[in-house]
Amino acid sequence: MITSDPQLRARMLLEALPYIRRFHGAVIVIKYGGNVLSDADRSLTELAEDVALIRSVGMRPVVVHGGGPQIDELADRLALRPAFIDGLRVTDAEMLAVVRMALLGTVNPAIVTALGSQGAPAVGLSGMDGSLAVASRVSPELGYVGAVSTVNPQVLTDLLATSAIPVVASLGVDVSGQILNVNADSFAAALAVALKATKLIFLTNVAGLLEHLDDPGSLIAEVDVAHAQRLIESGQIRGGMIPKVTAALGAALGGVERVHLIDGTVPHSLLLELLTDEGVGTMIVGGTQ
Amino acid sequence: MITSDPQLRARMLLEALPYIRRFHGAVIVIKYGGNVLSDADRSLTELAEDVALIRSVGMRPVVVHGGGPQIDELADRLALRPAFIDGLRVTDAEMLAVVRMALLGTVNPAIVTALGSQGAPAVGLSGMDGSLAVASRVSPELGYVGAVSTVNPQVLTDLLATSAIPVVASLGVDVSGQILNVNADSFAAALAVALKATKLIFLTNVAGLLEHLDDPGSLIAEVDVAHAQRLIESGQIRGGMIPKVTAALGAALGGVERVHLIDGTVPHSLLLELLTDEGVGTMIVGGTQ
Amino acid sequence: MITSDPQLRARMLLEALPYIRRFHGAVIVIKYGGNVLSDADRSLTELAEDVALIRSVGMRPVVVHGGGPQIDELADRLALRPAFIDGLRVTDAEMLAVVRMALLGTVNPAIVTALGSQGAPAVGLSGMDGSLAVASRVSPELGYVGAVSTVNPQVLTDLLATSAIPVVASLGVDVSGQILNVNADSFAAALAVALKATKLIFLTNVAGLLEHLDDPGSLIAEVDVAHAQRLIESGQIRGGMIPKVTAALGAALGGVERVHLIDGTVPHSLLLELLTDEGVGTMIVGGTQ
Amino acid sequence: MITSDPQLRARMLLEALPYIRRFHGAVIVIKYGGNVLSDADRSLTELAEDVALIRSVGMRPVVVHGGGPQIDELADRLALRPAFIDGLRVTDAEMLAVVRMALLGTVNPAIVTALGSQGAPAVGLSGMDGSLAVASRVSPELGYVGAVSTVNPQVLTDLLATSAIPVVASLGVDVSGQILNVNADSFAAALAVALKATKLIFLTNVAGLLEHLDDPGSLIAEVDVAHAQRLIESGQIRGGMIPKVTAALGAALGGVERVHLIDGTVPHSLLLELLTDEGVGTMIVGGTQ
Amino acid sequence: MITSDPQLRARMLLEALPYIRRFHGAVIVIKYGGNVLSDADRSLTELAEDVALIRSVGMRPVVVHGGGPQIDELADRLALRPAFIDGLRVTDAEMLAVVRMALLGTVNPAIVTALGSQGAPAVGLSGMDGSLAVASRVSPELGYVGAVSTVNPQVLTDLLATSAIPVVASLGVDVSGQILNVNADSFAAALAVALKATKLIFLTNVAGLLEHLDDPGSLIAEVDVAHAQRLIESGQIRGGMIPKVTAALGAALGGVERVHLIDGTVPHSLLLELLTDEGVGTMIVGGTQ
Amino acid sequence: MITSDPQLRARMLLEALPYIRRFHGAVIVIKYGGNVLSDADRSLTELAEDVALIRSVGMRPVVVHGGGPQIDELADRLALRPAFIDGLRVTDAEMLAVVRMALLGTVNPAIVTALGSQGAPAVGLSGMDGSLAVASRVSPELGYVGAVSTVNPQVLTDLLATSAIPVVASLGVDVSGQILNVNADSFAAALAVALKATKLIFLTNVAGLLEHLDDPGSLIAEVDVAHAQRLIESGQIRGGMIPKVTAALGAALGGVERVHLIDGTVPHSLLLELLTDEGVGTMIVGGTQ
Repeated sequence: MITSDPQLRARMLLEALPYIRRFHGAVIVIKYGGNVLSDADRSLTELAEDVALIRSVGMRPVVVHGGGPQIDELADRLALRPAFIDGLRVTDAEMLAVVRMALLGTVNPAIVTALGSQGAPAVGLSGMDGSLAVASRVSPELGYVGAVSTVNPQVLTDLLATSAIPVVASLGVDVSGQILNVNADSFAAALAVALKATKLIFLTNVAGLLEHLDDPGSLIAEVDVAHAQRLIESGQIRGGMIPKVTAALGAALGGVERVHLIDGTVPHSLLLELLTDEGVGTMIVGGTQ
Repeated sequence: MITSDPQLRARMLLEALPYIRRFHGAVIVIKYGGNVLSDADRSLTELAEDVALIRSVGMRPVVVHGGGPQIDELADRLALRPAFIDGLRVTDAEMLAVVRMALLGTVNPAIVTALGSQGAPAVGLSGMDGSLAVASRVSPELGYVGAVSTVNPQVLTDLLATSAIPVVASLGVDVSGQILNVNADSFAAALAVALKATKLIFLTNVAGLLEHLDDPGSLIAEVDVAHAQRLIESGQIRGGMIPKVTAALGAALGGVERVHLIDGTVPHSLLLELLTDEGVGTMIVGGTQ
Repeated sequence: MITSDPQLRARMLLEALPYIRRFHGAVIVIKYGGNVLSDADRSLTELAEDVALIRSVGMRPVVVHGGGPQIDELADRLALRPAFIDGLRVTDAEMLAVVRMALLGTVNPAIVTALGSQGAPAVGLSGMDGSLAVASRVSPELGYVGAVSTVNPQVLTDLLATSAIPVVASLGVDVSGQILNVNADSFAAALAVALKATKLIFLTNVAGLLEHLDDPGSLIAEVDVAHAQRLIESGQIRGGMIPKVTAALGAALGGVERVHLIDGTVPHSLLLELLTDEGVGTMIVGGTQ
Repeated sequence: MITSDPQLRARMLLEALPYIRRFHGAVIVIKYGGNVLSDADRSLTELAEDVALIRSVGMRPVVVHGGGPQIDELADRLALRPAFIDGLRVTDAEMLAVVRMALLGTVNPAIVTALGSQGAPAVGLSGMDGSLAVASRVSPELGYVGAVSTVNPQVLTDLLATSAIPVVASLGVDVSGQILNVNADSFAAALAVALKATKLIFLTNVAGLLEHLDDPGSLIAEVDVAHAQRLIESGQIRGGMIPKVTAALGAALGGVERVHLIDGTVPHSLLLELLTDEGVGTMIVGGTQ
Repeated sequence: MITSDPQLRARMLLEALPYIRRFHGAVIVIKYGGNVLSDADRSLTELAEDVALIRSVGMRPVVVHGGGPQIDELADRLALRPAFIDGLRVTDAEMLAVVRMALLGTVNPAIVTALGSQGAPAVGLSGMDGSLAVASRVSPELGYVGAVSTVNPQVLTDLLATSAIPVVASLGVDVSGQILNVNADSFAAALAVALKATKLIFLTNVAGLLEHLDDPGSLIAEVDVAHAQRLIESGQIRGGMIPKVTAALGAALGGVERVHLIDGTVPHSLLLELLTDEGVGTMIVGGTQ
Repeated sequence: MITSDPQLRARMLLEALPYIRRFHGAVIVIKYGGNVLSDADRSLTELAEDVALIRSVGMRPVVVHGGGPQIDELADRLALRPAFIDGLRVTDAEMLAVVRMALLGTVNPAIVTALGSQGAPAVGLSGMDGSLAVASRVSPELGYVGAVSTVNPQVLTDLLATSAIPVVASLGVDVSGQILNVNADSFAAALAVALKATKLIFLTNVAGLLEHLDDPGSLIAEVDVAHAQRLIESGQIRGGMIPKVTAALGAALGGVERVHLIDGTVPHSLLLELLTDEGVGTMIVGGTQ
């Protein structure tokens, strides 16, 4: 038993009521990072618990994932050397095979079975299924790296009409049938826009955006698009966070009401964000000033 | 904020997950007593919170009520003197008018509006609506007192297919169109059987059944039908509890899997019973030894 | 047997055919007055016969009722003294309880069971059910008297999709959950507009509108909104008829194609109005001259 | 106006209420004879009025017809000589062409357009449509004369799910695709059994069955199968009535609750039979003594 | 066996794949001429094979037919003399009866049973069924000849939602219920426009339109509306082809994407047109130059 | 163009008609072997063409695959040494990762994208998705090798209700959430039984079963279960064919009407089997002699 005070238990359940009602039937796209996954089973089990709960109270979660660490590990075993240009993985044919195997053969089934163990029927997908994510190549130097150009959400909307939870690996397919490696953050944003999601939540390994990069106390609870762009311009958002925030801004501008950056390393941060009065991390809202 | 520990909050929500899943779509008939109601607004608000929550997580509650104290109060104002035979109210034409007015004009709208204030769309009904509860007279001396002979659950199943919560006053109608006063406990049992309810929960003002009437520590957590019948025979169940337990046994024998007697004066006992690991009160299970 | 001439019988049935076809599926809101009810069983049985018949040939009637005489009678028994301002009942907390009990505990179940006795499944409702009629207070002096501000017709449209006939008492609920006493004529008009009713029929105890108040032969068969307003201004419509006609005009302006004032004391006037070539009473049609 | 007494009009409409309710959704197969048709437009218009009315109050009529007089007339114009064996028309290839043309080209469109003129959407069919009536030849001497062996009611049930009234000519098709001429009475009986019709009504040109053939006053209101068979054996049913009554008995034994023989030359006899308390003609009920 | 080379068989099936996919669910109106029918069984069986196949792969064919030769033959037997004005048949009451009998009694059931023999459930209809084709008279001299003024496609759309194939005779009905004889080409065009058909295909007995009437080698594969109109004006389209092409142009201007004139005397030309890369005949496309 | 004879083309299409009709809506489980896949793109494109065609004419194919050669290749690159016991792959944790990556990361997306390139929306799945295939371990020595104990076909039946083609990798999940490697032949048989498939087709690299192993001319066209068992006992079926035939027999005994072993290396053998009169390979039919 968690607490000896039954009244406390009851009040906590009741606190969730308005959120359950507000988000009933809402599509919630959750980007789950490979970094978060790599710190192993505990995090994955907690994610599965949270996603299973929000599904069982009537929300319609869609989990999107990449798998950088898993790709790196397999590449290493196969003696391939990763290379990056502007944070995007150079992906030749051999590396693409590694990406496919890591995402579809390792990360995706791990999430699907973790959800299954929570009693939640999950279905693993990728952008190739039902031509969900049609992509085109970004640049010759990057090889088989693509950006999503068209989302055909039918396979997802069909699944969401059942009780299943889609778990989608960030691969796309071009018009010739060639599989392409797609950045998972922008992949999640593209799906969220196409699904007219109510929320897009990035589970990251930082607390959120900071007004001043060197001041952990300057966490920003809510930010609009213009403000976020200024933070990028002024250098307060840097490095790997730039593409993530750029993807988030794209979703906000594309009509996703609320985009969240929350700390996936905090246990059950997803649940706290969705079902309690406590906001966690940073929320980006659409509109410009 | 209820507690400063977010992890505790998350774990409490997750504890409810298996119950939410198990009872998804289940019909839960809740008998709410006039005694419970009479101790006023706090109790009613808590009931409404609990019922609204279990509806919002996918259960299908049906609230059944009587209203003894309210009838007595109105009778008193109209200078009518209540009389009882074997615990059943003698109901002549004048008293029947009082019963109708108290149940339909006072208790029912109070519950309906309390649920409405929690954002839960409730619809007040009685056994006359759609000929839901066809009854026949019990005995000449009791006057317009009836026992349910046939339940036509269509009006309830139609409502349960929408998002509405039915709130049903314990009146029946005989084949000639005459309204009859029906004991609310047996009324609730008849509805639960007809609806093939998963649970029937009596909110009472005692903790549950006791193995020994004079030992509050002898609360029985679970009892089967044969055992409960022996408790009646041996006198450990007495007075007003006899018809209540008899109604409960009838429901258990009629196919309702689990019938509960719980203490409605404990705040949120309904929620604790349905969504936490803590059993409260006494559960009667079908089958004989 | 009613007539010995079978051909006459057949022709009368056939005369109804075009009306049956024209009004198939049409929502017909019928305001049934407490005055009409009070002259007892005969009138009520006839109403129930008529409503059951029009339902069985495919129309979708909604019955709305108040209950002035029944309120007065109960108030008298409880030694409360009715007071009125501009024809509206001053309603303090005690009087509101009386109103609730009279409407919900006496009038509503009487209509529901009368319909049930005709084999027509009726369901009693009020403005609190499913927050059907959200109202706000009219003035401090009137106490708990409200005017409908918003109609949430879902509970009615759900019921109308089944074979049930809704019978609605003219009570509303404000945003705080407080029940309010609403004038039944304006309540019926608000429902008719919200339901996009094809017809709104007021069953009154007069023959209809008169061009000259003192000339019974000057009954007006059809009148438009502007003409009716002139009759009010010129004093040819007076007293209790003013709020009734005002409600009727509101419905006509709100899009209800035809609003009728017919004499509910004439047996089966409802049926004659709806299913025969004989117009009865006064019809108000939308549009201004 | 038909009668100056509005109350009489209302009571006549109300008299129909229990029948409207009892037969709501019921399939009513109506065999309309060529003889009846031949006495021209008045009869056809009355049939159409009656069928349109019973459809509009919720019954599901299916009209079946033959067309003996029309066949004879066309055969005569084409200098073909009709021949009969045991009341069945000898049908060689030329005569079959005549039968097809008379039934499909004359009788069927006359009924369809008569219904259309009453605002009732009718659809002409025959046993070939959707292989509705698969038949096999009766005997070599009769040529293209068939008896229905299998009914595929899909095309009818599809139509009955819409608002259309099927009008079916009594032709069948054998397994090789050959059209066959089928006796309309037995054709109607086969459809009624396959459709699980509530009623099968033969519109004939006699008042019904007589206990004593020479005593018009001995009309039998209700007869069971065994009794009817004795009437055939004892010769009180003769000639053309024998196959008609045999078909009626087959339907009764096949599960059609009530089979009626009524006088189609009496105006609106169909309506009187279905919607008033007056039984007309003879009713055959299933079961043996 | 047709060919000894299985690979050839497989490739031919696969060639049809893109057409099957493109026309899945598409309404294809096929005008089948009486001339084509008259050259007997072979042509009719082939038509039925083709229509059954395209239905079974998911298209929704509607067959429309007239029956000039069959009308002439019956008129001749009845010693009536056909007369024509501008290619339209003068139709007095007697001739109308002949038209009805020939179309509904001979041609329509022949097509329906031919389809039935291919296992395809067909349903014979005409413009009277469900008031499908409301027409008005063209001129007093022509008698009962009509042009379609309104199409009520409900009966067709209901049938197309089932697996049935409608076969429609070119008769209309005017507002008074009078049947009218309608030119089958313009009848087919009116249906195609009302059904928003993807294709309208005229099966004729010529190869298609010729650029130069005397040069069989000048067959036009594709033509737009303006070009076709010039061909009429310049006299390269003559006689009976003028009303046919005029109907085709009307359909093209009414929104039917593609209208085809193909040679129905070439075996399986319908199939070749719809399911292979080989265009046959002339295609008229909408739009002007 | 494939052949210059259009009539031949038409006849070949028509030859397919009875098969298209017979198998409309039928579930066809197709086991596609890794051996077949490994001979590269030609075979895969042909499979995709065939599966896309049968889907587009209304069948509901489900593709099941393993991937032995692809597993071996990846294992080799990672310096793991494959080991087999009784034809089943010994699967430790490292080998399981290889199996997952090869099946889900290489074979599955190759089939999905090949189908997508034919315009057929395919969705990749495995036994973990929606707990489709619950399995249990076979023996301790084999490690993570499982046999399917329960099939939860919901995720497949949901997909089959859309236009998607499921492509299922032969992995299962045990009750603890552990992924297990399952033999693809028995996996396909288990799915076929659970889906009540009309056909189960094994695409192999041999022509079928031989009566005498050393006589290629003794190919058996059709065999019942008892006969096939005798062939195993007598040694005419050997080695890797034994588990395949055993799986086939299990499906036949489990209610799959027809199980086929056909040569997947013959181009379009699937199409020839399903849509032409030519039987290919060996058909196993249920029932014993």
